[in-house]
Amino acid sequence: MWMHATCFLDFNIPVATPFLFMLRPRSGWQQWVGREQYVLTPSVPAVEFTDPFGNLCQRLVAPPGQFSVHTSVDIESADFSDTAPGAPFVEVQLLPDETLPFLLPSRYCESDRFSQMASSIVAGWAPGYDQCAAIVDYIRRTTQYTPGAGQEIISACEVNQRSQAVCRDMAHLGIACCRALSIPARMVVGYLEKLQPMDLHAWFEAYVGGRWYTFDPTQDDLQGGRVAIAYGRDAADVAIYTQFGDPVELLGMEVTVERMAAPSY
Amino acid sequence: MWMHATCFLDFNIPVATPFLFMLRPRSGWQQWVGREQYVLTPSVPAVEFTDPFGNLCQRLVAPPGQFSVHTSVDIESADFSDTAPGAPFVEVQLLPDETLPFLLPSRYCESDRFSQMASSIVAGWAPGYDQCAAIVDYIRRTTQYTPGAGQEIISACEVNQRSQAVCRDMAHLGIACCRALSIPARMVVGYLEKLQPMDLHAWFEAYVGGRWYTFDPTQDDLQGGRVAIAYGRDAADVAIYTQFGDPVELLGMEVTVERMAAPSY
Amino acid sequence: MWMHATCFLDFNIPVATPFLFMLRPRSGWQQWVGREQYVLTPSVPAVEFTDPFGNLCQRLVAPPGQFSVHTSVDIESADFSDTAPGAPFVEVQLLPDETLPFLLPSRYCESDRFSQMASSIVAGWAPGYDQCAAIVDYIRRTTQYTPGAGQEIISACEVNQRSQAVCRDMAHLGIACCRALSIPARMVVGYLEKLQPMDLHAWFEAYVGGRWYTFDPTQDDLQGGRVAIAYGRDAADVAIYTQFGDPVELLGMEVTVERMAAPSY
Amino acid sequence: MWMHATCFLDFNIPVATPFLFMLRPRSGWQQWVGREQYVLTPSVPAVEFTDPFGNLCQRLVAPPGQFSVHTSVDIESADFSDTAPGAPFVEVQLLPDETLPFLLPSRYCESDRFSQMASSIVAGWAPGYDQCAAIVDYIRRTTQYTPGAGQEIISACEVNQRSQAVCRDMAHLGIACCRALSIPARMVVGYLEKLQPMDLHAWFEAYVGGRWYTFDPTQDDLQGGRVAIAYGRDAADVAIYTQFGDPVELLGMEVTVERMAAPSY
Repeated sequence: MWMHATCFLDFNIPVATPFLFMLRPRSGWQQWVGREQYVLTPSVPAVEFTDPFGNLCQRLVAPPGQFSVHTSVDIESADFSDTAPGAPFVEVQLLPDETLPFLLPSRYCESDRFSQMASSIVAGWAPGYDQCAAIVDYIRRTTQYTPGAGQEIISACEVNQRSQAVCRDMAHLGIACCRALSIPARMVVGYLEKLQPMDLHAWFEAYVGGRWYTFDPTQDDLQGGRVAIAYGRDAADVAIYTQFGDPVELLGMEVTVERMAAPSY
Repeated sequence: MWMHATCFLDFNIPVATPFLFMLRPRSGWQQWVGREQYVLTPSVPAVEFTDPFGNLCQRLVAPPGQFSVHTSVDIESADFSDTAPGAPFVEVQLLPDETLPFLLPSRYCESDRFSQMASSIVAGWAPGYDQCAAIVDYIRRTTQYTPGAGQEIISACEVNQRSQAVCRDMAHLGIACCRALSIPARMVVGYLEKLQPMDLHAWFEAYVGGRWYTFDPTQDDLQGGRVAIAYGRDAADVAIYTQFGDPVELLGMEVTVERMAAPSY
Repeated sequence: MWMHATCFLDFNIPVATPFLFMLRPRSGWQQWVGREQYVLTPSVPAVEFTDPFGNLCQRLVAPPGQFSVHTSVDIESADFSDTAPGAPFVEVQLLPDETLPFLLPSRYCESDRFSQMASSIVAGWAPGYDQCAAIVDYIRRTTQYTPGAGQEIISACEVNQRSQAVCRDMAHLGIACCRALSIPARMVVGYLEKLQPMDLHAWFEAYVGGRWYTFDPTQDDLQGGRVAIAYGRDAADVAIYTQFGDPVELLGMEVTVERMAAPSY
Repeated sequence: MWMHATCFLDFNIPVATPFLFMLRPRSGWQQWVGREQYVLTPSVPAVEFTDPFGNLCQRLVAPPGQFSVHTSVDIESADFSDTAPGAPFVEVQLLPDETLPFLLPSRYCESDRFSQMASSIVAGWAPGYDQCAAIVDYIRRTTQYTPGAGQEIISACEVNQRSQAVCRDMAHLGIACCRALSIPARMVVGYLEKLQPMDLHAWFEAYVGGRWYTFDPTQDDLQGGRVAIAYGRDAADVAIYTQFGDPVELLGMEVTVERMAAPSY
């Protein structure tokens, strides 16, 4: 299906402030960028680099005053996310090299402290996909998805002590549990069609059965309509913007996602 | 300045044929992509990867029948390409690691066979930028830029035996001479405003004085209006398309470049 | 100076267990490997890959029974680590791309929670090297270096609540504070001559004045005699071994470092 | 099997000369480095980096006078190189991204000019491994392996016009033909046990049936006893040394390879 997604960020900048943005979705094996726009107002010099996870990152210095970033994308994405009940666990020695960093604990996913909890959640399930599904199911049952409840980014350990969480928190918990079972897991930030309320979204992917599969503890079923903007170990790696120096004010943020007809520009 | 550039390729495909395309300009330190479109007709699954030079490459299988690729970009680029007469040669031991592959001979730049010729061309010039300028000047004097004269890609050695050449050939000769003097040099494929006749263009960059500088043997002065699409060692690395299997027919190709007002999408 | 360093690890393996080792020092701009040995007993198939930080990592499956790894290296290293009081802070927009991941918070360095503490520690110091030195000085004054006190890896936030710490903990605290000030900081694991008691060691590097400088909160002065084995964001990235599946028993570990004459093999 | 291999290079350096060396074999999935030595006489500062193909490269400036490099390695390698008659051709669209650069023509492998010749050689053979074997067989029949016949590096096109060739030439011809058939092929430089006369050796690998396989047109059967030192597209990428500036004199070179017992250092 084709989707048109937009993200608008509006800042009040007191003094010239360096920023990193991560707002350019890439064409990958599950999505194809047909059209893309990226507008800085006012226009300032910006450079782009590829981070260690393959994300395109934009570096710039925001000038004092009002500063806004407006991105949009027309993108073709899968109608449904693949599922694979029964897909087997991949023995660590057989994992591709590039998946190994996603086995290590990270800022918001202290997988080193989740061995016991993860083992208990997946007791009785076959190693692999079904374990991931059991983890997602557990998170859904024990945590109430509460958009807007997350001012501060909290880690999987902290999430675990609460009953309400945002998408990011639930992804962190899922990732921490998968890694504790030696299943590579990574964070995805992106757009999701029909999200209520509309916002940027976060979910995770786990590597089982020889490929990455999508898991989303916030959704009852794995509908498609997903656009991946960035991949990383957790929210620290995939912040859509990272700002250095004194905090600046985010005046507003607006996200839209709509289905569209196949373009014929 | 802002430019709107388009490239249209139209193929007749007898049997399903794998392709690599390199048609997505990246934002870099000299250009910023404001809008970009990439349309495949008919629409087919495509994946994208980053090659060892940082270029975004698109992989797909073109289906039998007529197949076309239509890309366009709104891009902000420098009004003038920087020049730096007198910029010094960088001793090989001080070159950044990532410039070293651009010292080695490559398919169309047999720099290992140009030591004598390069030394003779730059006799009397200060090592560095001025040597590169002397090489470009030599190529301009001895080779007649003849757009359309190049059906087949020929190497610097072969170019050297002819008096007429296309932009690609002249870049290959310049690169081979620079490398023969231990100056890293790389090929650029891209758009150039006001090129006559309009087409995709090729030029080269040399690393002197601590950064890459633009050189273009086909142009009398280094006006701006350049959009880099891909970087590589020579034409083998930066083909805008590489096709595998039996040759397919390119029915048509059209390139446009126009200056535009700063966009306000 | 030339040094001979060895590391011996001895395990009791109940069931075949996948391991990642990081025990091969690389020649870099501050050290040169003259001889190196890496022996697995019993000998088992092992493969090596380069992780995203450039470390050489060894993958293998340890067979049931006693399993040992014995590495040694003859290496030339600096007599003194460079210091640079007054070296300036590098504005974020001028940092090399590859230093940026070392600005982000990581598993054991929650730099996002250290802004206030870091600012207060460096109050009155010039941005850059002197701030790093002030941070190291603070850690030295407030934390008692207590080799052997660290069974479990704890994070900078946790370190901060204790008065005793191991080298790894003190490095984590230093890194967290540097990053909170927008100074890239990274963990180093390696050998240090004359360490008391002898063991593997951890310290950190900060990027100021255009390069990485060594900082070691556990040592009163920055003597040389250092051999870097691995670099990363924190202890999660540079574990000398990471073991998957049920925990195995480390029967013994022995580290030696001695000065040696320049080799003439 | 375990092997002890050494390489000794002795130069007469008139003026300080920058060098790139590629003389440190890596542990990979087919070989394990047990001990390694790398001695520069006189000792000079050297740095190491990883090139785009994963090879470890050493950079240094050789001082005026006699300068020598002495490397040795104890390495475990396969007793036999795998063969796989019948292993199928991998469709280009299914090739891993990292194999694609090995489909392009390169300095000494002008695969763009070998379509006809390659097709004619493999006529009647099943696409994949058997085509590669037919190419190797053809080279063996038509070219006489003549160690010492190659002062200058020549390209596949040039090799093709001669009846005598060195290992490097024969590898270039094999690679050019494979690539012309859309089979990724890469050059390997290394040691081979029992080579007559003993010297460094070159062969190639082709990607068929989902992995790289060894091919060596100079040997009648694919015995083992191989140590890979470097991988690349052709001899330009894997020169064991590249020297910049005025040519220096290689006073001597000596290579040894011996089988050894499993080490117990």
